[in-house]
Amino acid sequence: MRKSPLPRAEKLSANPTDAERVPRGQRRRRETRSRLLEAALRLMAEKGVEGVAINEITEAADVGFGSFYNHFESKEAIFAALVDLLFEQFGDALDRLVRGVADPAEVISVCVRHTLLRARSEPVWGQFLLRAGFSGRAFEPGLGQRLLRDIENGVKAKRFPADDVLMMWMSANGTIRAAMELELQFGSSPTEMKRLGFSAEGLAERTAAAVLRILGLDQAEAEGIARRPPPSIGPELPSADTTIRRGAVV
Amino acid sequence: MRKSPLPRAEKLSANPTDAERVPRGQRRRRETRSRLLEAALRLMAEKGVEGVAINEITEAADVGFGSFYNHFESKEAIFAALVDLLFEQFGDALDRLVRGVADPAEVISVCVRHTLLRARSEPVWGQFLLRAGFSGRAFEPGLGQRLLRDIENGVKAKRFPADDVLMMWMSANGTIRAAMELELQFGSSPTEMKRLGFSAEGLAERTAAAVLRILGLDQAEAEGIARRPPPSIGPELPSADTTIRRGAVV
Repeated sequence: MRKSPLPRAEKLSANPTDAERVPRGQRRRRETRSRLLEAALRLMAEKGVEGVAINEITEAADVGFGSFYNHFESKEAIFAALVDLLFEQFGDALDRLVRGVADPAEVISVCVRHTLLRARSEPVWGQFLLRAGFSGRAFEPGLGQRLLRDIENGVKAKRFPADDVLMMWMSANGTIRAAMELELQFGSSPTEMKRLGFSAEGLAERTAAAVLRILGLDQAEAEGIARRPPPSIGPELPSADTTIRRGAVV
Repeated sequence: MRKSPLPRAEKLSANPTDAERVPRGQRRRRETRSRLLEAALRLMAEKGVEGVAINEITEAADVGFGSFYNHFESKEAIFAALVDLLFEQFGDALDRLVRGVADPAEVISVCVRHTLLRARSEPVWGQFLLRAGFSGRAFEPGLGQRLLRDIENGVKAKRFPADDVLMMWMSANGTIRAAMELELQFGSSPTEMKRLGFSAEGLAERTAAAVLRILGLDQAEAEGIARRPPPSIGPELPSADTTIRRGAVV
């Protein structure tokens, strides 16, 4: 797992209510950090890490150029902080969600569906995930590694075949990201999708079934599992912005 | 199919030998266009279309800023010209290659393997393809549409199931691109791959097998087809740079 730049306890204590109790200087510092992270999230989702300059981030955040370096060492550091905040916490939420699920196939189905529904409700988050996956990080720590771990658990339990785990992982990984692209490209314009002769209805479930097929299940079983009612996610997962505000401690 | 900005006949006549016969002014114009295309290819492969400014292209090409507009209307126009030159011609070469192949599964296997071998021998081409696929074009005309056509041929011939063609296409498309990412990330550093506990050996064949599995074949048949000796590609496919120099007519 990627090392978080902040100790966990500090992260958790930084919720909006106690933000009001901290001294003004510290609060202001925290707000600046939030603004920088939010601006970087939007810009990097749109243009990729390589396409964004630090001065664009500070301008979009309405912060002086030099202040950037009070919070982050470099563009790569703010990107890494976003990856930590947005994907590690989402991954932790997924882990909690499937804690009671015994079947490794259902674990993966639930995670795939939640990831796609998240991309629908938060397109900027989805776009950022695609950009992060693309920038040579798809097979590095993060959600990709969690997927590998879940596949390996299924292989150990003899639920999935052990023939070529790398290919199963790669193919599942690529399929999930292609589904997110479809969602982000056509999710809000089903007529465009129809023009191609397809329907995007039930995309999350169909993608989960496609991933289970890759993991060796037959079509009927894959579809059955993909359509099971998911476990309740409990308290709403915080949005990317909320996550940033809570996580943006000094 | 994306409309080519140049009539086909003009493109074909523009090979290096007759370049020597054309008047100097025209030759110079053609050279400038080549340099712009080559610079844009490298920059856009590295940073994506959104991450590149026109003045970066003209500086890298060592051409005056204004000259750009003698050749292309916009950044999007030079990107579209590159997509045409690099992917339509590659797609045409693939079509010629599989002309004598009767089995729709083998057609797809051969095309997948050649695409991955091409990414290995020309990483800039591969990186540009990933960027182009990523920028909302993965499901638009080009190689993605050819893949859909080949899948639909197999469905018509009852070689592949007709259950959910969109998912088969999406999943195959995502798998091929994830394999290209693996190739570009680890192809030159097998020790890095081993660190993850995997081997990238035979990646092209294994990816072809993974795609055939997505299309409904069982593991044994998929592997058998993926390992068949491919049809000879005949005269070597021109490199991206050669394609650009030949295609860069005024």
